[in-house]
Amino acid sequence: MTTTQEWLAKAAEVAGILASDAVERERANRTPHAEVQLLKDTGLVTLLGPVEHGGGGQNWTTAYRVIREIASGDGSIGQLIGYHYLWAWAARLVATPEQIAAVEEQATREKWFFGGAINPRDNDLTITDEGDEIVFTGRKSFSTGSKVSDVTVLEGVLDGTDKHIFAIVPSDQPAIVFNDDWDNLGQRLTESGSVEINGVRVPWELAAGYVGKEFQPRTYNTLNVPLIQLVFTNFYLGIARGALTTATAYTRDRTRPWPYGGDNKESAGEEFYILDTYGDLQSKLWAAEALADRAAAKIEAINAHADTVTPEERGEAAVVIAAAKQRAIDVGLEIGTRIFEVTGARASANAVGLDIFWRNLRTHSLHDPVAYKRVEVGRYALLGELPEPTWYT
Amino acid sequence: MTTTQEWLAKAAEVAGILASDAVERERANRTPHAEVQLLKDTGLVTLLGPVEHGGGGQNWTTAYRVIREIASGDGSIGQLIGYHYLWAWAARLVATPEQIAAVEEQATREKWFFGGAINPRDNDLTITDEGDEIVFTGRKSFSTGSKVSDVTVLEGVLDGTDKHIFAIVPSDQPAIVFNDDWDNLGQRLTESGSVEINGVRVPWELAAGYVGKEFQPRTYNTLNVPLIQLVFTNFYLGIARGALTTATAYTRDRTRPWPYGGDNKESAGEEFYILDTYGDLQSKLWAAEALADRAAAKIEAINAHADTVTPEERGEAAVVIAAAKQRAIDVGLEIGTRIFEVTGARASANAVGLDIFWRNLRTHSLHDPVAYKRVEVGRYALLGELPEPTWYT
Amino acid sequence: MTTTQEWLAKAAEVAGILASDAVERERANRTPHAEVQLLKDTGLVTLLGPVEHGGGGQNWTTAYRVIREIASGDGSIGQLIGYHYLWAWAARLVATPEQIAAVEEQATREKWFFGGAINPRDNDLTITDEGDEIVFTGRKSFSTGSKVSDVTVLEGVLDGTDKHIFAIVPSDQPAIVFNDDWDNLGQRLTESGSVEINGVRVPWELAAGYVGKEFQPRTYNTLNVPLIQLVFTNFYLGIARGALTTATAYTRDRTRPWPYGGDNKESAGEEFYILDTYGDLQSKLWAAEALADRAAAKIEAINAHADTVTPEERGEAAVVIAAAKQRAIDVGLEIGTRIFEVTGARASANAVGLDIFWRNLRTHSLHDPVAYKRVEVGRYALLGELPEPTWYT
Amino acid sequence: MTTTQEWLAKAAEVAGILASDAVERERANRTPHAEVQLLKDTGLVTLLGPVEHGGGGQNWTTAYRVIREIASGDGSIGQLIGYHYLWAWAARLVATPEQIAAVEEQATREKWFFGGAINPRDNDLTITDEGDEIVFTGRKSFSTGSKVSDVTVLEGVLDGTDKHIFAIVPSDQPAIVFNDDWDNLGQRLTESGSVEINGVRVPWELAAGYVGKEFQPRTYNTLNVPLIQLVFTNFYLGIARGALTTATAYTRDRTRPWPYGGDNKESAGEEFYILDTYGDLQSKLWAAEALADRAAAKIEAINAHADTVTPEERGEAAVVIAAAKQRAIDVGLEIGTRIFEVTGARASANAVGLDIFWRNLRTHSLHDPVAYKRVEVGRYALLGELPEPTWYT
Repeated sequence: MTTTQEWLAKAAEVAGILASDAVERERANRTPHAEVQLLKDTGLVTLLGPVEHGGGGQNWTTAYRVIREIASGDGSIGQLIGYHYLWAWAARLVATPEQIAAVEEQATREKWFFGGAINPRDNDLTITDEGDEIVFTGRKSFSTGSKVSDVTVLEGVLDGTDKHIFAIVPSDQPAIVFNDDWDNLGQRLTESGSVEINGVRVPWELAAGYVGKEFQPRTYNTLNVPLIQLVFTNFYLGIARGALTTATAYTRDRTRPWPYGGDNKESAGEEFYILDTYGDLQSKLWAAEALADRAAAKIEAINAHADTVTPEERGEAAVVIAAAKQRAIDVGLEIGTRIFEVTGARASANAVGLDIFWRNLRTHSLHDPVAYKRVEVGRYALLGELPEPTWYT
Repeated sequence: MTTTQEWLAKAAEVAGILASDAVERERANRTPHAEVQLLKDTGLVTLLGPVEHGGGGQNWTTAYRVIREIASGDGSIGQLIGYHYLWAWAARLVATPEQIAAVEEQATREKWFFGGAINPRDNDLTITDEGDEIVFTGRKSFSTGSKVSDVTVLEGVLDGTDKHIFAIVPSDQPAIVFNDDWDNLGQRLTESGSVEINGVRVPWELAAGYVGKEFQPRTYNTLNVPLIQLVFTNFYLGIARGALTTATAYTRDRTRPWPYGGDNKESAGEEFYILDTYGDLQSKLWAAEALADRAAAKIEAINAHADTVTPEERGEAAVVIAAAKQRAIDVGLEIGTRIFEVTGARASANAVGLDIFWRNLRTHSLHDPVAYKRVEVGRYALLGELPEPTWYT
Repeated sequence: MTTTQEWLAKAAEVAGILASDAVERERANRTPHAEVQLLKDTGLVTLLGPVEHGGGGQNWTTAYRVIREIASGDGSIGQLIGYHYLWAWAARLVATPEQIAAVEEQATREKWFFGGAINPRDNDLTITDEGDEIVFTGRKSFSTGSKVSDVTVLEGVLDGTDKHIFAIVPSDQPAIVFNDDWDNLGQRLTESGSVEINGVRVPWELAAGYVGKEFQPRTYNTLNVPLIQLVFTNFYLGIARGALTTATAYTRDRTRPWPYGGDNKESAGEEFYILDTYGDLQSKLWAAEALADRAAAKIEAINAHADTVTPEERGEAAVVIAAAKQRAIDVGLEIGTRIFEVTGARASANAVGLDIFWRNLRTHSLHDPVAYKRVEVGRYALLGELPEPTWYT
Repeated sequence: MTTTQEWLAKAAEVAGILASDAVERERANRTPHAEVQLLKDTGLVTLLGPVEHGGGGQNWTTAYRVIREIASGDGSIGQLIGYHYLWAWAARLVATPEQIAAVEEQATREKWFFGGAINPRDNDLTITDEGDEIVFTGRKSFSTGSKVSDVTVLEGVLDGTDKHIFAIVPSDQPAIVFNDDWDNLGQRLTESGSVEINGVRVPWELAAGYVGKEFQPRTYNTLNVPLIQLVFTNFYLGIARGALTTATAYTRDRTRPWPYGGDNKESAGEEFYILDTYGDLQSKLWAAEALADRAAAKIEAINAHADTVTPEERGEAAVVIAAAKQRAIDVGLEIGTRIFEVTGARASANAVGLDIFWRNLRTHSLHDPVAYKRVEVGRYALLGELPEPTWYT
């Protein structure tokens, strides 16, 4: 498999498979072992990996489209693949060239699926320096995907310093305990529950970006938040598209026209309000998608010269991504709510599962307050100011 | 208990009791036997019943407020009490004076809780005339509340004629089989599943409004649809208010302010966007409530002269009710969606239950297409035309 | 003329007269001398005046309805009559019982039309104490209606103190110079330009509320802002209703249905989207009106015991009024914009004048930021806090 | 001047010049002779013309960007240049290869500015066949730009047939009489008034696309409507951007923060609601722009093989353009209305001219009902149906 088109076709095929039992799996709250395996078997987990090690050698533009595609079939799996790409990319953001090369080779050859336990609003994990090793200890409220992953990205602060350290560790080890307590209204299959980190040991040479226990910053380090926010945006858009695809199929197959005076329609597809509503929703979704694509182009331009990216480029990408995220959320929630009006009363049956889209989107879109994302864009539009990059927001 | 204020206080008290375990009962999908008993014990089921038989002697204005209040504690129970009032009122709409007197006395004295199995989009039940009795047979897709009721209102068409007949029958009889198949995304505790009517026998003298097997129409007959739609409107408004009450409590108690540059707030209650959003939602809800109250006043004016109501009065009430319903739905869905933005990510936990409001409202508001309700109002605003009353829409 | 219904009918008649040449007068920017005279001739200027002196003896509920009615015919004149009622009521808010009695008698008998020059965001007028007289000097950016009024309400601060003093003075005097510089996009006929106050002399005994040069505060003093904001709300609602009335007439008379495939309509009144849109707009307007009526009821309740009004009553009225104002603005702007979509391209001709409504509403609704009004309501909904009354905001 | 970037920079420069006196020219309703001359002098009128004849040799992607840019400075001039590009392109759509070559050479060398008098909702002009010549007679309600143009595109039906014929004729001739009756609320400087066509004579060899008095259709013929609708979309977007640019400048320079309790801001740029609003508006505009760019890419792809374009390609482009147009209108009207809320009361002064954007957009966006554009998109989203191309809609 070599071309971008082929990768997208493959993603669409996987989305179709996921969609076929998405409602059933969601109702059963089924841990997505088989779905992660499917992502591995189809090569999607190594989409960004180097070709020489068996990876797809694709860029983030393709990765974003793949995330969107997968999320259109199953929002949870779309989030998992998106987070996987991010965690797998973390090395490129913070590690040394040698570490990057090593991680990419091993991760690609062994088809690692990545999870992570990094929530900036929790306390940092504590890291103790034990000579050749560092040891992570603490608790994280969310650990999306770790339970079904091969490796997990940890982050902590070295005790007695303000040094943040990232490391990739095996997920299946006694020092990592998953609490299986993810019980939220959407994105139910993401295994996002809390995790206890009870002394995970990591050799110093795997401390990402550290040489001789010292970290060397690059501007590209600060790209993590924009990259993440655009991952969010793309699985939101995928969820929204999935909602529209599912709803239109329902309307075509099952919605009855409404008896109305002498002007009864023969099919739901002739109802003016149904066509009007779908046209409105589809137009809004296309616009949000187009903005997300434009944001991806900015990321791609930056990735083309990762070592020389300027704060201005970083900031402008962040602003456009903040804008795209808002549009994806607004439009997605509107779609998730209004599809019922064009499918009808019986479409509220749990067997149909039209509520999953709203729940998925509503849940994850609370990650950080969208009002502050609007303010970020507003500050740029009004004052020309770019958002300050931080490790966390 | 005698004054309207006291009844409303009682309803508020019941709402508080219902709210206390609403999330738990909803998750457990618990059949609301205890809750119906509570409505009986507090006298709310006989709110509209004659004082001389032990009823509250209240009018529909109070009933609508009670429905709204109860729904603010639990949307399902709000729907049940609302439907109960409607089915109990059905006698007044279609029965003869003697039948009305008899039903009101018995229903009030015995604190009947009413259910119904009347869905105009299903085929009518078939009625056969067996001399002194009529016999109902058929199937109805929805039978809200019947399973937890004392009596059920049936409606059918007399075989070989176009005569529609309503009758009140005991709910607990072998000829009525509940299929327990209500599995929709909201209003889960309303027991709205399908029902088989396998030959329910009713003496002719209980055929509502029939004398000598002939029906005498009144304009007041046609009030059923406006009354119903305003019942819907009021439990929608109650659900919306419940959403706002629950969310504001969460924000006050648990929402953390967002870390933001140098302008961090000490509490969520100082966040501009949170105050702005709540102000917007509260204002919209008050406006919708005020319109529902105005619609109730029109119903009250009609009830004051039920036998001489004109088609114009009926039509104008129907139009205002259609308008109120739209506002309640729009505003309620917006509240049900946006409350998450002012409570935050952790409020998406299933233990919090903030999704119930959107699900409840989204589900029932599909009863009939709101687009056609807008058209009804538009036809009046543009052309001065009133909606044609029919038995069903 | 005695009943409220008759007053409202009279107002509707005047609105019709105003509407008949509203576009022409607006284009010509014609000073509304004739229109103010019409308000006097019909008795509307003395609607609130005591019956014993020839006034209408009506309450604010009626006044608000009259304002709304007049504004539906001409937004500018609606603002003028609304401000007139406010300035005329200013005595009741701040004056002593004797002053109130004197002003009401004279104003009613002589059919005074009131203007005012009180803009809190300007510097206060300076007042010098010259023994028996006080002298006002300064400049005000806005002096709505003064140019066409008999008397003008001034407000200033006594030099060297923090005492605010209100007084009613003749508008036609050399010491008051109108700059005729009101050139804004809406409410063009309100004569709201700036004014120079060049030493207007007022006897101390006409300093409202002062006895022996000392002011005695009452809670009722603080009602001015809520009263004002509800006046605004009502002429906004009138403007919105005027927009809808004008547009529906245009659609009925002149809008052509759109040629569309095989499903062409015979008239615009059969177009689904037109009925849908008008239904939506009418429903929203009714809801906003109903909330304004509810707010008026709160004012009326307070007026019934002006001397014993509590801060809580005042605050709760202010919050509901803030909510009603927001709804009026949102709905009015939406109506002012969307009416074009249901009247069609030719309705954009200046001869039709459909733009006046949006311009009128857009202009005046900027009086104070609606975002802060949302925050006022939000603070109440979330925290139960009432807005602090001040003389100005 | 050779690169696209340089052309866009030139357009931006022209937009700046236009913006500098746009309010003044709009208030004066000044016929845009100088502005058309500026478009000629800068080479923008021949942007699409062949390089060998002195044209810019640019494609429609650039033309659309130029239209957007110009419209951001002055909506009327943006419409004029957009229509000019369309009329100038009409030859490519319908003419024979020889005619195309001849027109492009002459139009480019002589820097023709094009107008047109083609409104499908009027009766067609009547064409009589007078042997070597055809003669156009009739009346058109709208003739955008013709009055300031060198040539005008006419269209009519050959008497006694159903043959439609397009021709380019000199605008300045006695047989064309402009009625100067364009008096609408927006796009005031477009000279869009009605025109009398009193026997305009055209040699048969200039009848576009006719050989031996017979027309040969191509699918590319049907591209006119999508091309036009995307021109509309782009000047709508330009108007919206102009609104935002003008408003942000005003807010920065002149808007005062609002006095509010103890949390007063030092500048408008610190007000949360102002940043929030601008962020929302900017995000929406970016999304609409991105969708318009995506639509332009579809047009470009088609233009690359104009003679072999398929109905599917044409239809899919038309649908995306319909979507982009809706988004541009919705977003533009929202921006045109809400900018006042973030500039404040004094920004409603006519001297500021912030109303021009809403008026411009509101006026032209009525060209054809946007509800039917939504239905077009909805029909595609729901049923996969493409809009039927016609000569007119």
